[in-house]
Amino acid sequence: PDECMVFMQRAVSSVLGLHWICYVTLGVLMALVSFFMDLAVSKLTRAHTWLYEGLHGHVLLQYLCWTLYPSFLCAVACGFSFNICPSSAGSGIPEVRCILSGAELPDYLTVSNLFAKVVGLTCVLASGTTVFLGKVGPFVHLSTMMGAYLQRIPVINANKAKSPVGMLVVAAAVGVASCFSAPVSGVLFSVEVMGSHYAVRDYLPCFLAAACGALTSHLLTIFSREKGEQTVQALFKTICLASRTHSTLITVCHSLFHSLSVCIYLFSHQWALRFTRTNKLLIRILANQKVLYSGIVVFFLASVTFPLSAGNFMAAKLSMKQLLFTLLDQKQWQAVSQNASAPEDNPEALWQMWCPPGTSVFLTLGLFLLLKLWLLVLSCTLPVPAGYFMPAFIYGAAIGRFLGELLAYILPHGMSRHLNPGGYTLAGAAAFSGAVTHTLSPALLALELTGQRTHAVPVLLATLIANMLTRARNRPSFYDNIAIVKKLPHPPSLIRTCPRLSTVLLGQVLRPLDAVVAREEGLMGVQQLLESTSETVFAVVDSHGEINCFRWLNICFLQSTNPQVEDVGIIKTVKIHLSAETPLKQAYAIMGVLRETHLFVTDKGRLSGIITWTESMAPVK
Amino acid sequence: PDECMVFMQRAVSSVLGLHWICYVTLGVLMALVSFFMDLAVSKLTRAHTWLYEGLHGHVLLQYLCWTLYPSFLCAVACGFSFNICPSSAGSGIPEVRCILSGAELPDYLTVSNLFAKVVGLTCVLASGTTVFLGKVGPFVHLSTMMGAYLQRIPVINANKAKSPVGMLVVAAAVGVASCFSAPVSGVLFSVEVMGSHYAVRDYLPCFLAAACGALTSHLLTIFSREKGEQTVQALFKTICLASRTHSTLITVCHSLFHSLSVCIYLFSHQWALRFTRTNKLLIRILANQKVLYSGIVVFFLASVTFPLSAGNFMAAKLSMKQLLFTLLDQKQWQAVSQNASAPEDNPEALWQMWCPPGTSVFLTLGLFLLLKLWLLVLSCTLPVPAGYFMPAFIYGAAIGRFLGELLAYILPHGMSRHLNPGGYTLAGAAAFSGAVTHTLSPALLALELTGQRTHAVPVLLATLIANMLTRARNRPSFYDNIAIVKKLPHPPSLIRTCPRLSTVLLGQVLRPLDAVVAREEGLMGVQQLLESTSETVFAVVDSHGEINCFRWLNICFLQSTNPQVEDVGIIKTVKIHLSAETPLKQAYAIMGVLRETHLFVTDKGRLSGIITWTESMAPVK
Repeated sequence: PDECMVFMQRAVSSVLGLHWICYVTLGVLMALVSFFMDLAVSKLTRAHTWLYEGLHGHVLLQYLCWTLYPSFLCAVACGFSFNICPSSAGSGIPEVRCILSGAELPDYLTVSNLFAKVVGLTCVLASGTTVFLGKVGPFVHLSTMMGAYLQRIPVINANKAKSPVGMLVVAAAVGVASCFSAPVSGVLFSVEVMGSHYAVRDYLPCFLAAACGALTSHLLTIFSREKGEQTVQALFKTICLASRTHSTLITVCHSLFHSLSVCIYLFSHQWALRFTRTNKLLIRILANQKVLYSGIVVFFLASVTFPLSAGNFMAAKLSMKQLLFTLLDQKQWQAVSQNASAPEDNPEALWQMWCPPGTSVFLTLGLFLLLKLWLLVLSCTLPVPAGYFMPAFIYGAAIGRFLGELLAYILPHGMSRHLNPGGYTLAGAAAFSGAVTHTLSPALLALELTGQRTHAVPVLLATLIANMLTRARNRPSFYDNIAIVKKLPHPPSLIRTCPRLSTVLLGQVLRPLDAVVAREEGLMGVQQLLESTSETVFAVVDSHGEINCFRWLNICFLQSTNPQVEDVGIIKTVKIHLSAETPLKQAYAIMGVLRETHLFVTDKGRLSGIITWTESMAPVK
Repeated sequence: PDECMVFMQRAVSSVLGLHWICYVTLGVLMALVSFFMDLAVSKLTRAHTWLYEGLHGHVLLQYLCWTLYPSFLCAVACGFSFNICPSSAGSGIPEVRCILSGAELPDYLTVSNLFAKVVGLTCVLASGTTVFLGKVGPFVHLSTMMGAYLQRIPVINANKAKSPVGMLVVAAAVGVASCFSAPVSGVLFSVEVMGSHYAVRDYLPCFLAAACGALTSHLLTIFSREKGEQTVQALFKTICLASRTHSTLITVCHSLFHSLSVCIYLFSHQWALRFTRTNKLLIRILANQKVLYSGIVVFFLASVTFPLSAGNFMAAKLSMKQLLFTLLDQKQWQAVSQNASAPEDNPEALWQMWCPPGTSVFLTLGLFLLLKLWLLVLSCTLPVPAGYFMPAFIYGAAIGRFLGELLAYILPHGMSRHLNPGGYTLAGAAAFSGAVTHTLSPALLALELTGQRTHAVPVLLATLIANMLTRARNRPSFYDNIAIVKKLPHPPSLIRTCPRLSTVLLGQVLRPLDAVVAREEGLMGVQQLLESTSETVFAVVDSHGEINCFRWLNICFLQSTNPQVEDVGIIKTVKIHLSAETPLKQAYAIMGVLRETHLFVTDKGRLSGIITWTESMAPVK
């Protein structure tokens, strides 16, 4: 049987290769992680709701329950993630983009980070709509960590000579796909977010892993569903009856409005990010009292959304999923709300949370839009693992709903009778989140999530126009903002925010390499250099007289006694020499495509300098 | 008003840029071309049908009408395309891929080629199912020609410094999108077919142009539709009721079968391609008597499919669209055909063409599959502009239908009652065409064409598995086959068919550059070199003594009297020097990403050789 196994293994791996199995495993694993995280979150949320409902009649106790529960959860998330792995805070997508474009950020792919992020994210998601943070970003990061971990398993790595970056690109697609069971938008996300050039050899693995992740997560949802409960997909069945040309025109105006609000949002987000990094009081608090800060901020957020005060007018009791589901409703709320009965436990009537008796829909939606923008910006400053995509998606949906309701209200009855605000919600969600992140995959995501084809044209058009407007004049995206404020080495963001970078030549930024060792100097030379400099990269040349043919040395250990230069580190031949007249942009492209971390600049055959990520970012500072 | 116009123009171009307008124009233009081509084809086909039906009762006349009409059309297409522009024959996708990866094939983007291809393609499509050729490939080529033409308009090109290749990538997406009104699969097609690295900066333009093309073509279809007529989208409404795990298992077996048939098809296609290039008689005929050859081959094809002989058993009367539409039918033909009435003009009853009275469905489908494979391979050798994607799509659909009917027949009644052969057809079409071209976009295309979401999982899975199996062991795709036989400079195809290429180093293939001119030699030196060599690329060095700092010169004209070296051509600084130890694969990647046509190899600062497409292909021969 052992021989049989070996034969089978050989047969399978000769046809398919072990890396294919690795991709499938990654997809299935991430879908399982997503499912169990959702399960834990729903248990925690249900406990909160049960406690809150049980305290009915005691306003003060209800207030404390409403505010302290999420504050406690977020404080735990913050403390946990900070103590186990500080770099697990935030979304993680900007850092993953840097890793994919060739930079080395070793902290971001460790197992401790994986652990801290899973626990922290679960706590943050369990604190619900009060905190209003999402799951996608950290999940993409989790997926890349898992991919990097699978990559390190010797059996898999021995049989293949693929670059580890390929696995990370696949993992990014899996993250989105297993989160939403949407394979196509997962693949498109990994194409558009993860670098300046997409290697087509990663395309089939991406699709395979994303399809496996989406299929597993879909099957898990079906099997775990309680009786009578329905998924978002099955419930959201709208029919778009507005005539096509008419709706196309409206879509264009619609997306103009969206681009405007995206600009406001991005500007205030950028301002908040800068403020938390420059205000001295905040810096001191964030440095020492992260947990306290998280607790206080969430307490404040929860106080604002307390259902017996302002929260009553902004549907604060609904979870993120319910918010999205109610906003996608196809009824015209303004028209129906006059003769509506009290909200019941029927999921079809959940939308009535948006129309508390005696108030107009426009008041609640307007209040939601006004307040949530600032609350969202505030919660983005929390040092916890959290995603910022889903909040933008829901916020955009609310804008779309508002516009749809407004149109239904102001248009004459004949035209507005067949108007479906749900379609505007969908287009709004895709356009807003797409414009915030400068991506188009949200349009596909909106279509895949809801299974709608009738809205394909307006959704795609709105996303395209909003994207074009927000991208004009090199405005940075949400991820770019974070990358710039955190000073991450990500060339595309840098070039976008600093257009003069595209005319900089290598000669203007290169760093002369002092650490040069001749081959005949042997270990002695290396030791001398190690004492005098803190570099870990040396140029190894044939003779000191003329620096002609050189290799570079990455010092690892000094183990063996009386070793040669070759023994103390890894010597790599320098294959590509650039001239000092090369534009920095081309150097970025080469570093990204060939996954090089060091580029060497020569002049008349002599080494004149070295370019790494540090040098290439010099002009920005 | 003039000032106002200028102001408007500036305002628009400062926000959006003229190139955006250019992308939109490209999308709309290609949709218009597609629409008018379809219109012309439908008129020509209707004339043929009218003539054929009018000759009812005269078998010989009917036979002549059936065979001579397509022969004449194909002969015209062949003669026309050969006399106006010989390179307009074939699909054009392999050549477009070469152009995108940096090679120069000037003939393939001219306006005369555009003209020849439009007329030739219309004639070929009008000859109908007899010839069984499609539209997609040439349409992608047409679209890139149109894109290159738009790119040459001075107003557009003056304001932007983008590379022309970006426009061609966009054009490829538009070609597919405007052909099928399927924007997403258009974009995915351009990602996966058009190079080894996809530049993400082309992504938004691709989506924009594809969406505009798809929207225009969709609107044109709606407005031009006659009353009562329905599009494929509206008609094909199937419901997949087979249980999920059950259908997943079947899908896997299904795709195994597909991969097998794809291998047979690709092998026979490769054999036919080689045969037409090596058989001496055929070479002589194809060199001098292309038109005669086309006429005779089509006459033979038409004789085989004559409806009063074998054609009766392979639904020869149906057009390509009708073939696809009938195959996607959701009824179980085997079960229904027993009590069916005679076929009428009702589009719902068109499928009965597949079940002529007295014969089994399996006979007609089997005969179709057996005969069409060889007929298709034969028609692929025709020297006319034609696409090979749609035939593969329909052939795959027929395989899927056959398997679906077989399953419905052999499974017990309880299990087979809810089985929908239409779903198998869809999965089969996507899997077969995807495996033939080594792409995944057919899966998206199948879903976008039919608007089905219930079949998303089996379609995607079948396409993925069929792709993985046909890609294993570096088997070349359909396009690779053509590229290899035609000896086109396309690195990914070469690496796939010749794995040892990935270990070749530059030192083994470089060509020593003899044409070296020193700067001080001036024009005299250039003229001397021009007389002694046929090169158009020279290295310009500082002094002949040491070839240290060099530039290269691309000779254009010798216009001015007593010119300097700088005046006679374009001098470009060499920015990237490679060492002789660089793998050829990395050189390919650099040439593709940076769009360089010449790479220079240096050794200790001295120029040791040059690498162009010719050299990089040397190890293959």
